[in-house]
Amino acid sequence: MERSGWLVLTASAGSLILVFLWKRSRERRHRVPCESWARWVMAKTDGSSLQAPLLLTGVPLGECTDRWSDTYLERIIGETKISVHISNTRFLDFAAKNFKYEIMTFQGFLRRIQSSSEGTFLYYRSQHQKRNKASSLDTLGSIADDFVMPRLLLDPFRVHSTVLRVASTGLCMWLHYDVCDNFLCCIRGRKRVVLFHPNDIDRLYVSGSSSAMGSRLLQKRGQTQLWKEFPLASAAWSRRLEVVLNAGDVLFIPSFWPHCTEALPSKGSRSSISVNTFLQRPEWASLHDPKDVWANRELLPAQEATKGMEKILPQLQELPPVPRAFYCRKMAAELLAMAN
Amino acid sequence: MERSGWLVLTASAGSLILVFLWKRSRERRHRVPCESWARWVMAKTDGSSLQAPLLLTGVPLGECTDRWSDTYLERIIGETKISVHISNTRFLDFAAKNFKYEIMTFQGFLRRIQSSSEGTFLYYRSQHQKRNKASSLDTLGSIADDFVMPRLLLDPFRVHSTVLRVASTGLCMWLHYDVCDNFLCCIRGRKRVVLFHPNDIDRLYVSGSSSAMGSRLLQKRGQTQLWKEFPLASAAWSRRLEVVLNAGDVLFIPSFWPHCTEALPSKGSRSSISVNTFLQRPEWASLHDPKDVWANRELLPAQEATKGMEKILPQLQELPPVPRAFYCRKMAAELLAMAN
Repeated sequence: MERSGWLVLTASAGSLILVFLWKRSRERRHRVPCESWARWVMAKTDGSSLQAPLLLTGVPLGECTDRWSDTYLERIIGETKISVHISNTRFLDFAAKNFKYEIMTFQGFLRRIQSSSEGTFLYYRSQHQKRNKASSLDTLGSIADDFVMPRLLLDPFRVHSTVLRVASTGLCMWLHYDVCDNFLCCIRGRKRVVLFHPNDIDRLYVSGSSSAMGSRLLQKRGQTQLWKEFPLASAAWSRRLEVVLNAGDVLFIPSFWPHCTEALPSKGSRSSISVNTFLQRPEWASLHDPKDVWANRELLPAQEATKGMEKILPQLQELPPVPRAFYCRKMAAELLAMAN
Repeated sequence: MERSGWLVLTASAGSLILVFLWKRSRERRHRVPCESWARWVMAKTDGSSLQAPLLLTGVPLGECTDRWSDTYLERIIGETKISVHISNTRFLDFAAKNFKYEIMTFQGFLRRIQSSSEGTFLYYRSQHQKRNKASSLDTLGSIADDFVMPRLLLDPFRVHSTVLRVASTGLCMWLHYDVCDNFLCCIRGRKRVVLFHPNDIDRLYVSGSSSAMGSRLLQKRGQTQLWKEFPLASAAWSRRLEVVLNAGDVLFIPSFWPHCTEALPSKGSRSSISVNTFLQRPEWASLHDPKDVWANRELLPAQEATKGMEKILPQLQELPPVPRAFYCRKMAAELLAMAN
């Protein structure tokens, strides 16, 4: 080969390596840090380790990861009546309410997931039988015994609730935040989680605790259109964290980190199963609403502030456009000054 | 000359022209538009012409521009007792209160301005003798007859107040906003005015109606330090409007446009004189506080909203840092969504 040929070859190879390294560095930038759970437990006494998401490896979760086949679950809780989210799109959206609730047996639910055509997506989130109580696996009978979180991991938190979640693969849960810390445990299948820093809340078009973007952030195509509709979200997206959980992985999601999830396809099943445990920090105990069932009722002082805001907005609405915008911005600046 | 010599010369001249054009385009970018007052009166029926500052030329302002020498003013109102702002810096700052008030005769005030050493700056803003009434030139005797605004220009506004302002040259008035529209008339000397769009209120560190930056924006040096202390203000500065008023010029400052002024040196006097007329738009009449003396009391619905905000902030203060910042940003986003 001539010298120029070598040069072209070397240059091409160099470019390929550069593109590979650049892509890898971009992926790394968004990656949730990973730590062994035992080491994290030791660091947890320092509150700062509770400020960011963390993928915990090697957590012993009990028998569930081995046992929870469809056959097993049908046998134990097949006859239990449950309320299921059902939708003809995989991108669930709480604001647009693009799903319905349907009551069915757990057995019927599992069978429908496995047999359903491409266009139907189902999602189950366990609730307490008494609607005013937080979810606990105990209400699902003996499967509760199959899921065990190490006591050391839960200390010194107070467990708020434990939730079983079963979704058709492909199903995307809308972007939302919770007021409780959260151990999200992947039991079967794979789960993608995208997370945002609490400081990005003002770029995520959240009303209540859900985003007007639904789960559209997880669509592979159509981001140009999304940024047109939600222009501030693009910057938040560039700062997101991402992780893919495999069976047995546990993700620590700190309270107030907005997140959305995608049940990824995996071999042998058209459903994904996870359990999550919501936690309250003892030092925040007095701030939590005792009536909070879903782990998303605002902290008590924030409820008061929210009520105040609900009075302020109509008062500002009484102003003509220029002074309205002026005072809105002036008051926003006061809030942002307190945030920083 | 050799060819290379010509090339260097041509290139240098070209660079100079480019720098000149670039500087001129930058100055233009910040310039307040200018219009004859008669044409503006005709356009005024369309409310949109009241949305931006405008330099009005050729406004007949009465005899004041010719008559108001120190000798004349001393003769007519020399014995009147007035309250004067006095400071050892020319950059007045309402938040830092770097000035004092002193009572003196108008004559004494004028003489002190003309004789005072470099390090003392004086500023007078006329008030009504009854402190609960808005300023009117009538309380200063017959000089009131020397200042006349064309009736056509004032229609259909309601005149809120007319204020005489006399300042040592060099004196800079702190950045603030008014809730009334304003005709600022330069009677003697030259006056630099820097204005910001109401949408930049959230970048100007305003509390009440005054900025924590005082008048430091007008310092020729020290901007690097200023942007360190007030990082958001830099972007607002890049979008400012500027104008230099000469004797006889009238600047229309719409309500809610934050502004600061500098009394520029001019020949023959160490003082600058202006009169401004604050106006209320008839369609906003019910929004103005009847107790507003200084043209800076918030519009009534904004007063209510401000009271609400004063309750919200301590409620948010009860939260730990992360949820506090989170809810502050979330509520700021609601306000900003209403602003847009």
